[in-house]
Amino acid sequence: MEKVNLAEKFTLFNDYCNPRIIGELNGQHVKAVKLKGEFVWHSHEHEDELFLVVKGTFNMELRDKTVTINEGEFFIVPRTVEHKPVAGEEVHILLFEPATTVNTGDVENEMTRKQLEKI
Amino acid sequence: MEKVNLAEKFTLFNDYCNPRIIGELNGQHVKAVKLKGEFVWHSHEHEDELFLVVKGTFNMELRDKTVTINEGEFFIVPRTVEHKPVAGEEVHILLFEPATTVNTGDVENEMTRKQLEKI
Repeated sequence: MEKVNLAEKFTLFNDYCNPRIIGELNGQHVKAVKLKGEFVWHSHEHEDELFLVVKGTFNMELRDKTVTINEGEFFIVPRTVEHKPVAGEEVHILLFEPATTVNTGDVENEMTRKQLEKI
Repeated sequence: MEKVNLAEKFTLFNDYCNPRIIGELNGQHVKAVKLKGEFVWHSHEHEDELFLVVKGTFNMELRDKTVTINEGEFFIVPRTVEHKPVAGEEVHILLFEPATTVNTGDVENEMTRKQLEKI
């Protein structure tokens, strides 16, 4: 039972699209991830996903609109909804989602990360 | 599917110890709550609780130690662990917890809030 400092966790890694687990509760994971550039279009069949911006800004592209999410804002992508995060500059994001969630959902490619590091 | 701005949500209410629901996903609630003063010792039999400080600072009193949680930090209280949040000054907190969670857990008193407003 130790507190977690978000800024400190984000100093511990520098790669993009590779979420780290920084908290676990009720079968859910709290993850820290850095994004830059375009992610891949995907959806999650069984998991809703929360994206909270800790630093920076990014666009959540949906099939019918694009939502710009800034520092101090969050966005929930409901299960089955196709989405593609796009970050012009580096953005630091906290994810809150079921422990079963794979980052690229129904797509498997070079961005897929199945075994996440706990930091 | 709209984004949520945390600072904006905290302008929508001014009372203490009365969490509002600002997001729902995977059977969990995201809540915004303002605290000031001493809460009550309590525990949750079946729910782990995450406290993320959005503004200010507070002490999480546990039976064996006290943890000071500052802006940009979070703390997870595992189920069954007795805790008492104490805030010298007003603090803005984001809670992540199962939708079933009652704020005072196993204690029922004047601080208990069972029907939460969604904002």
